[in-house]
Amino acid sequence: MSGFDPKGRIVPVILCGGSGTRLWPRSRRDRPKPFLPLLGERTLFQQSLDRVSDRSVFAPPLIVAGEGHVRLIEEQASQVEGLRVLVEPTAKNTAPAIALAAASLPADAIMLVCPSDHYIEYRDAFVAGAKGAAALAREGYMVAFGIEPSNPETGYGYIRRGEALRGGHRIARFVEKPDRETAERLLQTRDYVWNGGIFAFRAGALLEELHRHRPEMADLIGESIQQAQESDAKIMPAAPPFTRIVGESIDYALMENTECAAVVSADMGWSDIGNWDALMAARPADPEGNRLAGPVDAVECRNVMVDSDGPRVSVVGIEDAIVVIDGDEVLVMSRAAAQSVGKLPGALAQ
Amino acid sequence: MSGFDPKGRIVPVILCGGSGTRLWPRSRRDRPKPFLPLLGERTLFQQSLDRVSDRSVFAPPLIVAGEGHVRLIEEQASQVEGLRVLVEPTAKNTAPAIALAAASLPADAIMLVCPSDHYIEYRDAFVAGAKGAAALAREGYMVAFGIEPSNPETGYGYIRRGEALRGGHRIARFVEKPDRETAERLLQTRDYVWNGGIFAFRAGALLEELHRHRPEMADLIGESIQQAQESDAKIMPAAPPFTRIVGESIDYALMENTECAAVVSADMGWSDIGNWDALMAARPADPEGNRLAGPVDAVECRNVMVDSDGPRVSVVGIEDAIVVIDGDEVLVMSRAAAQSVGKLPGALAQ
Repeated sequence: MSGFDPKGRIVPVILCGGSGTRLWPRSRRDRPKPFLPLLGERTLFQQSLDRVSDRSVFAPPLIVAGEGHVRLIEEQASQVEGLRVLVEPTAKNTAPAIALAAASLPADAIMLVCPSDHYIEYRDAFVAGAKGAAALAREGYMVAFGIEPSNPETGYGYIRRGEALRGGHRIARFVEKPDRETAERLLQTRDYVWNGGIFAFRAGALLEELHRHRPEMADLIGESIQQAQESDAKIMPAAPPFTRIVGESIDYALMENTECAAVVSADMGWSDIGNWDALMAARPADPEGNRLAGPVDAVECRNVMVDSDGPRVSVVGIEDAIVVIDGDEVLVMSRAAAQSVGKLPGALAQ
Repeated sequence: MSGFDPKGRIVPVILCGGSGTRLWPRSRRDRPKPFLPLLGERTLFQQSLDRVSDRSVFAPPLIVAGEGHVRLIEEQASQVEGLRVLVEPTAKNTAPAIALAAASLPADAIMLVCPSDHYIEYRDAFVAGAKGAAALAREGYMVAFGIEPSNPETGYGYIRRGEALRGGHRIARFVEKPDRETAERLLQTRDYVWNGGIFAFRAGALLEELHRHRPEMADLIGESIQQAQESDAKIMPAAPPFTRIVGESIDYALMENTECAAVVSADMGWSDIGNWDALMAARPADPEGNRLAGPVDAVECRNVMVDSDGPRVSVVGIEDAIVVIDGDEVLVMSRAAAQSVGKLPGALAQ
């Protein structure tokens, strides 16, 4: 469908799904994480666009998002010529979202699937990784970006590198989020990288593999795209078949099943900014380790992040803590407890 | 002056001076600590009135305050019949304030001088102490309330009990706020009590002692009261002589110099609520040691006080900390750093 021709360039497919609660109250249902300027003046979504803005390498991006976010996307991406939005009828996790994108592209298009809410410090390393991944995808591999791990993180999945390929490795196995002890062991072997949630596929190869491992999903995706409505820069797949899909992640549905999974490794200052502590770590610190944004007075504090959108915050004698003011909500947490923010009534109720 | 006759009852003299910064931002210049409901529904000032409301023991109280607080006093004490306000022309510490009160009372009146911003848990013990102090004051003693110390507090002055008197002791010596080591030693001797800032005097005896030790102050007080204007329930001493007084505390000007200083000891659940940590200690705790006032959600917290006048506060994984929201100010501190609140720009600028 559609007359889109990437002209041999990589097609960025940027996923804007998900409604995380762990950056509440800054992140809210109607103003989710990708669309917030959490690091620097540009939002994470805008930074995702910036990373793929070299039109000699990347075609104009295809954004996959729910209807509720289309207005935010149009506002924040108004400068990007040729950008298209593929509107998911409903959220069904990553496999259906990526498959929709694949089905709406020419079969020989090379897709680079990127979350819109991660942070990548080194753009050149990202682009180099993208080119390497694209080369393997052209050969038919399903390619994951592996992030060189810097610490025994328990919040990420791990990928074990297997047989060497040109510019990457076959994937030997996937490891779910490990406990601390396991993470330390994986780190020592030097064979493991983090699963960064970034993938490269040839569109047709992806759909073939999906037919092999999730035939029902593949059929419903096909129907949904065949019946799609397209207008200007918006593609609206048909809802009835799509809503019948059993949602699944691309890792479960495809990457862990396919015989042709590969990984390219990248050391690009990546973070999924999965909670307030991860955000704090990605922000520059003053000599006391503090990160203070907004009107803040700090006395006798170390390793404290304060982020206020208005009221003055005075902090006295605290360490390893995070204070967030957003509108009518105040959040105070220890860095170690940042993972528990999602349990708060405020985060759950939105 | 004035036709006031206490009819043999103790005259409560309640001091409303001072503008502490250590309970900022709840306490502010135009809404200082005595006039806030920090513990229970009544303000500390109202609780001071409640403690002396038994009219068989206490005459209607005399309030000493600056002009700026008269409106708050009238609002909060509107139910108290016979209450009078003595308006200090300017703040000059406690000795001139107390002497003004003494000079405006009959010479044989027994005054009980009470701060308006302390907390006393056990009213019966206070009243018993007041009666004992009044009995010694009738004999001509300058009587301090000594508080039985519960811990080696470094924030209070100490009084050493000397020769026993009927219902009390002569004061052997005063000890300025000690360091921790000294405080621990004082506590072990069992001879020392805290100086609670509560005093009893016979008005005439106080003025005689003041003439002896601070003759210039005594003369200026006399002039100021002779030229006072009195209307309804308000006494306005003349400003010109009063402003020439060198301000001094009653401890320095009188108690440490007089030959007839005495102390009565009381165990009445007293606290000067001198900072946020002291206020926290005086509030009832839930099983996790938390004191939560206002809309608060707490997850995995211990020994935390949150006091919000509006916005919801969510606290996660913090310990031994205090969070205060007041209007457009947010304050987050460790309990141990509560003494440093006065150093904050917000507290200093008001």
